[in-house]
Amino acid sequence: VALRSAADVAEAIRAMVVRGAPAIGLSAAWGMVVAARHGEDLAAADFLLRQSRPTAVNLAHALDALQSCWGNPDALLLAAETLAREVERAEVVMAAHGASLLRGRVLTHCNTGPLATGGYGTALGVIVEAHRRGRLQQVWVGETRPYLQGARLTAWELAQAKVPATVITDSTAATLMAQGRVDAVIVGADRMAANGDFANKIGTYGLAVLARHHGLPCYVALPTSTIDLLTPDGAAIPIEERDPEEVRCLGPCRVLPDSVPALHLAFDVTPAALVTAIVTERGVLRPPFGEALRRIAG
Amino acid sequence: VALRSAADVAEAIRAMVVRGAPAIGLSAAWGMVVAARHGEDLAAADFLLRQSRPTAVNLAHALDALQSCWGNPDALLLAAETLAREVERAEVVMAAHGASLLRGRVLTHCNTGPLATGGYGTALGVIVEAHRRGRLQQVWVGETRPYLQGARLTAWELAQAKVPATVITDSTAATLMAQGRVDAVIVGADRMAANGDFANKIGTYGLAVLARHHGLPCYVALPTSTIDLLTPDGAAIPIEERDPEEVRCLGPCRVLPDSVPALHLAFDVTPAALVTAIVTERGVLRPPFGEALRRIAG
Repeated sequence: VALRSAADVAEAIRAMVVRGAPAIGLSAAWGMVVAARHGEDLAAADFLLRQSRPTAVNLAHALDALQSCWGNPDALLLAAETLAREVERAEVVMAAHGASLLRGRVLTHCNTGPLATGGYGTALGVIVEAHRRGRLQQVWVGETRPYLQGARLTAWELAQAKVPATVITDSTAATLMAQGRVDAVIVGADRMAANGDFANKIGTYGLAVLARHHGLPCYVALPTSTIDLLTPDGAAIPIEERDPEEVRCLGPCRVLPDSVPALHLAFDVTPAALVTAIVTERGVLRPPFGEALRRIAG
Repeated sequence: VALRSAADVAEAIRAMVVRGAPAIGLSAAWGMVVAARHGEDLAAADFLLRQSRPTAVNLAHALDALQSCWGNPDALLLAAETLAREVERAEVVMAAHGASLLRGRVLTHCNTGPLATGGYGTALGVIVEAHRRGRLQQVWVGETRPYLQGARLTAWELAQAKVPATVITDSTAATLMAQGRVDAVIVGADRMAANGDFANKIGTYGLAVLARHHGLPCYVALPTSTIDLLTPDGAAIPIEERDPEEVRCLGPCRVLPDSVPALHLAFDVTPAALVTAIVTERGVLRPPFGEALRRIAG
């Protein structure tokens, strides 16, 4: 996919050609570089990119990081390159911090690997590192309706990394937990509020409730750039509602009668109270999270 | 679909051309009538039909009810016709008993309406009757991966019945509950054990846990023919594991890389402890369920 303007990049983000909070942030940064090369109005480009999707805060963080370089295309390129390196490095460090939390069989949701991030992955980076250390037997991957990021992307990433993985429909997770076939849940995040509440792909909140019911740990892995201290709690995180057509369709097939509406919430909010630990590139945080988050992201 | 032998009917049940516990039972009964007409060995026909799917106990109940008529094709036809009438009548009565339990916005899963039953529906019959009485504002329909019975069948049935319905991905239920947009969960069952534990479509158990977490009632509607007093509890219910290809595919599209396995559990078991009330044609049962179930199904 060739993107030749900030508008191209914004549309690619909106249409989910690129998705995953860290990858969205980096795409926006490269969108500014492209805009500068083509002599676009950078304030307009910044505005377009910032509005492309509402939930992930990495988008705003990446664009904020570049604003001081608008006057200098060389500096802008350098800033984008630096950001990309920092994002990937944070993921490698995060994986090292988090790997010792996991053992046995872990369940993940949506896509948090190389295809969604700076190149190494957030939750998936932790999983791959735990496997590399011989700690994991099995990864359960929720298919992640409606976009099937789990089935289409995470399953492929785990196969590339030679980590044993099995895909399940999202509603199978509860039964695997009841059968004692899950040891932990680990997910990524699109935005974490100052109190540790976080938005992530629809389905995450239910998994966190189910993990609690079954006495299983629930971990969230994210770079500090996903933490938004200006958002006090989950209720203040804007949750994107996407086109219901994305629920009405399975790939090319329309499965729903025309007369029946569908609802497509793209994200949900998981309260901090359901989180066992937060894995970041600055270490593993345990509850209560508020002060620890201020310390590492302030 | 024309079915001309017991083997045809058994294959239609196995391949889910017909599905839904009551509809499977009635199809097996008609399979015996077809077999008798064509002079098939009825013991072999009974065996084939009985083995077609493992979880729904209605299959065995329907075949048991016909066994005394094997020697008389006219009596066999009459027995099948009587069974069909009884099954539908039980559903109408069940709906009348259950309707007063529901109000506001209810969430259901899989398909329990005319397409899955004796013609009126189990959980969906209760929903339609509650709506007829002016008690319901909204029905949330889980799409029910992997077969999408909710999106493809229940949504159509509710549209036919002019009940306002909105389809959601299965993993959206938790968030709707957290947002206060669900007042009750109601589902059907494929088999209920003597203690009230029951098997139903994969995803039901998770909804029951989520309902409990959010302080919402969870109802199950089923005819007494779905109760199996010989199965002591949920652990003894055989759970069908179906072809993983059904998870790997979305209709005609293969979405999973070939190298990644999938798991397809067709049902799950919900413990009686998570059930608020059981709706049957013999009334509404409240916990503890054991003695009440023995009384109505003994």
